[in-house]
Amino acid sequence: MPNPTAAMLVIGDEILSGRTRDANMYYLAGELTTHGIDLREVRVVSDDGPAIVAAVRALSANFDHVFTSGGIGPTHDDITADCIAEAFDAAIDVRDDARALLAAHYERQGSELNEARLRMARIPDGATLIDNPVSVAPGFTMQNVHVMAGVPAVFRAMVASVMPTLTGGAPLLSQTLRIDRGEGDIAGPLGQLAADYPELSIGSYPFQKDGAYGSNIVIRGHNGAQIDAAIVRLAKEMGV
Amino acid sequence: MPNPTAAMLVIGDEILSGRTRDANMYYLAGELTTHGIDLREVRVVSDDGPAIVAAVRALSANFDHVFTSGGIGPTHDDITADCIAEAFDAAIDVRDDARALLAAHYERQGSELNEARLRMARIPDGATLIDNPVSVAPGFTMQNVHVMAGVPAVFRAMVASVMPTLTGGAPLLSQTLRIDRGEGDIAGPLGQLAADYPELSIGSYPFQKDGAYGSNIVIRGHNGAQIDAAIVRLAKEMGV
Repeated sequence: MPNPTAAMLVIGDEILSGRTRDANMYYLAGELTTHGIDLREVRVVSDDGPAIVAAVRALSANFDHVFTSGGIGPTHDDITADCIAEAFDAAIDVRDDARALLAAHYERQGSELNEARLRMARIPDGATLIDNPVSVAPGFTMQNVHVMAGVPAVFRAMVASVMPTLTGGAPLLSQTLRIDRGEGDIAGPLGQLAADYPELSIGSYPFQKDGAYGSNIVIRGHNGAQIDAAIVRLAKEMGV
Repeated sequence: MPNPTAAMLVIGDEILSGRTRDANMYYLAGELTTHGIDLREVRVVSDDGPAIVAAVRALSANFDHVFTSGGIGPTHDDITADCIAEAFDAAIDVRDDARALLAAHYERQGSELNEARLRMARIPDGATLIDNPVSVAPGFTMQNVHVMAGVPAVFRAMVASVMPTLTGGAPLLSQTLRIDRGEGDIAGPLGQLAADYPELSIGSYPFQKDGAYGSNIVIRGHNGAQIDAAIVRLAKEMGV
């Protein structure tokens, strides 16, 4: 059975403006690979309602799972929950279970559960909550879309809450062989190797270091013995 | 006149598998912001022909400029040039000007211009070449799509070649105010500020440090005086 597929939707201006270098995409990609879920596409969109709704609909229809990050806090630019509701034509309002979590948390803190904070209890009808052990305000899963916070520590905690609920496939295994020759010199045998092992994904990631050319060849797949055989053949052919 | 819009398409399995943390997106976002071109969307897709073609068509139709990175080397997984040709229903073959660049380069190096390397001279009909001062093999611009290498040093050099050819708008200016209070406490006044300055983009990026909550408020826009006024008002209201 092929592995489940996934897409990620990063919501927020901070990456598009160059203010922030992505961390959540990198983290999620690694977690999904470990869990045998194939991340096939990532989109980054700004805090723009129609853009978010369109992306959620497209990705939700095309992949088994969609993971979103960002836009579920208490401020005016946090519009993700409303966009998810709109994408699924669902109603949305403050929900009692989410409100109870927030009320208990802010009472412990001695802070007021004001109107802004209550926005974080707005959950689309039919969604289930995602536990947030870091800062309490929950994420939620709406159909096949898992809606999580953008703050990296909270994002990671929510991924840890969601992941055990998902059925993964075979973990994606990989081996890397570094070859200190230009890609143009190794492309022929590499293409033949890829043709002979159609079930493996064979990538070439060239680099230049101290003026010399080289490439890291990464062979990925679900069958460890097959990857071993391909790496051994490649190393032999390249004289590595 | 509003600024030109742009999208980026990152092509390659290495980010989706979690092997590599993105660097090109972060770099391009900063350059575009400086040049007054608004980056509105980023997509990351794998080395999969139909996915690349579909993304190129969608982004090219929706934005003034599209910048791609990755998949233009000599190996079997380098399929970007062919996908761009397909997306625009253009013919593609080895082109004399690109071949001449490569021939001169490999002659200087004492390397053979073999079949694999010649793949890097495949350019869609109607495209113009993008100079590559690092490793010679050119990128190209096809209509509004700028096709560049994925290796960060080469990507940056190609961005530097392309950028002066584009008409930018007003640079996006920004100021940041750090507020050491939870987002829930500042969301009200912040929302009012955003409503009063509809031309500015006001983002709140919360953080937790040493157990305390805070948020960086980033105000972006094209009018420096307006940004100043908004920051001063916010600082006053927050007692910062």
